[in-house]
Amino acid sequence: MEFLLTKRVKDNRTSKIRERLEIPPDAGIISFASSQPTRDIFPINDIEEAAKEALVRWQNSALQYSLSEGILPLRDKVAHMTNKKLMTKYDIHSICVTTGSQQGLDIIGKLFLNEGDVVLFEPPMQLSAFMAFSNYGVRFVQIASDDHGILIEDLDTALRLEKRVKLIFICPDFMRPSGKSWRLELRKAFAKTVSEFDVMVVEDTTFSDFRYEGKSLPAVASWDEKGQFILLGSFSRIFCPGVRLGWIGLDDKLMEYARRIKRSSDLNSSTIDQHILDCYLEKYDINIHVQKIVKQYRERRDLLADAMKENFPKAASFSKPEGGLYTWVKVEGLDARTLLEKCLEQQVAFVPGHSFFSRGIGDDIFRLSMTSLPAERIRAGIKRIAKGMSALGFHPSTRVTINPQAYLKLDESEQKKVFL
Amino acid sequence: MEFLLTKRVKDNRTSKIRERLEIPPDAGIISFASSQPTRDIFPINDIEEAAKEALVRWQNSALQYSLSEGILPLRDKVAHMTNKKLMTKYDIHSICVTTGSQQGLDIIGKLFLNEGDVVLFEPPMQLSAFMAFSNYGVRFVQIASDDHGILIEDLDTALRLEKRVKLIFICPDFMRPSGKSWRLELRKAFAKTVSEFDVMVVEDTTFSDFRYEGKSLPAVASWDEKGQFILLGSFSRIFCPGVRLGWIGLDDKLMEYARRIKRSSDLNSSTIDQHILDCYLEKYDINIHVQKIVKQYRERRDLLADAMKENFPKAASFSKPEGGLYTWVKVEGLDARTLLEKCLEQQVAFVPGHSFFSRGIGDDIFRLSMTSLPAERIRAGIKRIAKGMSALGFHPSTRVTINPQAYLKLDESEQKKVFL
Repeated sequence: MEFLLTKRVKDNRTSKIRERLEIPPDAGIISFASSQPTRDIFPINDIEEAAKEALVRWQNSALQYSLSEGILPLRDKVAHMTNKKLMTKYDIHSICVTTGSQQGLDIIGKLFLNEGDVVLFEPPMQLSAFMAFSNYGVRFVQIASDDHGILIEDLDTALRLEKRVKLIFICPDFMRPSGKSWRLELRKAFAKTVSEFDVMVVEDTTFSDFRYEGKSLPAVASWDEKGQFILLGSFSRIFCPGVRLGWIGLDDKLMEYARRIKRSSDLNSSTIDQHILDCYLEKYDINIHVQKIVKQYRERRDLLADAMKENFPKAASFSKPEGGLYTWVKVEGLDARTLLEKCLEQQVAFVPGHSFFSRGIGDDIFRLSMTSLPAERIRAGIKRIAKGMSALGFHPSTRVTINPQAYLKLDESEQKKVFL
Repeated sequence: MEFLLTKRVKDNRTSKIRERLEIPPDAGIISFASSQPTRDIFPINDIEEAAKEALVRWQNSALQYSLSEGILPLRDKVAHMTNKKLMTKYDIHSICVTTGSQQGLDIIGKLFLNEGDVVLFEPPMQLSAFMAFSNYGVRFVQIASDDHGILIEDLDTALRLEKRVKLIFICPDFMRPSGKSWRLELRKAFAKTVSEFDVMVVEDTTFSDFRYEGKSLPAVASWDEKGQFILLGSFSRIFCPGVRLGWIGLDDKLMEYARRIKRSSDLNSSTIDQHILDCYLEKYDINIHVQKIVKQYRERRDLLADAMKENFPKAASFSKPEGGLYTWVKVEGLDARTLLEKCLEQQVAFVPGHSFFSRGIGDDIFRLSMTSLPAERIRAGIKRIAKGMSALGFHPSTRVTINPQAYLKLDESEQKKVFL
């Protein structure tokens, strides 16, 4: 009965890429494709304690249906944490708990996207957003950008020319998959520009905690003047993804609608999961845990950059982002899909770049997850990729140079190489 | 920014009804509207044990992302349980775990429903399905039915005349909200009829365990010849809804697509919840727990019927279903919405019937949850509703008679009163 399926299902190309590269972390293959957090770092003992306490304290009501928008104490804590970190002004009436940030994206799609609507994005496009919004029959339109983020002028033009723009998707902290971050000035300029249009903005903050250098910046949503921003957050990376919780922050006036959509989607996210997380946040200081993760991730990022510098050919340029989970490698003249075939023979994997663009570009780019693998596997994996490049004629005869401060400097022509 | 919302959100009338009637179970008001399971019956100690074991046995992997379609041991158990109970032929490749059965409906909507498609249903319509499918811009068309279920002749006509029928929604075991069940002959006839058409059938089995008399019947899907049935199941009622898990059973060939849609919706349902349930199913016999629930629910159903018989006016007719969670009251000449206003003054609530029909009928009907309230609250609540009826001129001067074997007999003209 496959012929009865909707177009949205048949067309879903991002999922095909993901499925192809979904490699169990314990398999022989070294996967830079997966961005699963390292299991070893989950606070399992504290989670066990929190689970015990959740049942003792909340008894049977921890096992009952709960409010579609999430249990009150958790929404309260999320609002406080977010306001402190990202300078927003949320309260319990503006936080809706979701089944991971992926469901946040789906709810936003249901709330705002009609067939034929346009979603603006800064390429490369985040697969999770592409996957979620594709279900609502939208058209994706790229906004020009440089190494420092979106180009406001181009954004303004797109907003004036494209008649059906409903939503702009942004990720100003360690954009996925490129790793780019927006400076303060760009954040302010973006907020000012969009405030002149009737358009929603989805700001992904799920990686904001993972900053390895430089100073944290306020969310662009902190300059929101008319309730047009929706913030996307998650506990998958800073706590664990198996207790499956994320959230969206949005204008109070939209909450009633978000609740309805959430209800029609799954009634409510797991009540027991919400209580486990809530008890954890009450008993422990999650920031101490986050610092532990950041330390590990920073070491891995540095190690990966060193390994690439040592092994990759001159033709390769790559980013060393201030934060986030991904780095982005560009090799002039290389076809990343061909390299992937070679690499899979060598038992190493990554995600080829063409997957992240709405038009057929990005062929000479690939994405590496910086943080999922331990040191020895990072080193071995990079050597294998270099071997794959070698087999395609890209020999490591000359070393590539990187600039670790790449994203703090402006107008460096060298940086033009790093991103498309 | 509310003007940017989609039509699907603005139109969602079922959610408005639900919100209005979402009354906390501990409030002073006696709510026959809520169909939350009784908290006291959750196997909390066993769940605590199962949670402990899940973390001991699966360690950090119970806290990690997991397969979009659900963890393997749980899918295996669901397939076995379902095959045994409902005579189906599922295996792990045909079971997709969902975040409650509500998400099952949403996934089915995403898989099959395009704007303008037609969903056939036997009225009264189940709110959860109406709520989920409405998001996909479909048209709902009612099929004529009698006290025993859908009329095959009318179904056949609708399938021939309506050009865009994509899906038929059925609930042959204790239909929500009317409580009706389909006999064996009807099940077979339905399966035969639909096999002649290219149409999907969603069969809701979430209440199938709650049979208080009579013999269990195979799912209609057990006669599926061409992979056109999707079974909808849930652990919310037989385990607990706070560990938020349901499932859909579908043809192997559709699984790849279901997995993609599941992934784009929330990546996966809570991994820890899945392991808790899986460990519970391994350690304990869930059938013993279900029998305990069935015993309690049967007592409440009987008590509710007695209370109605004793207190309701002659004009009232009502059902005493063989199973399920709801009864259905019809009072000739009454406006159920007006009665609800009166009843809310008396601190008692129910769901008026018009909410369950796609066209403006059902005004003289209302739905009572049979199983959510303890004995003393059932008795007090029915007295209050009777008082409300009295205030509207429906005095309990004469007693109504009911037939407890209603659904086992055919062609009894008396039964015509019970359902629309």
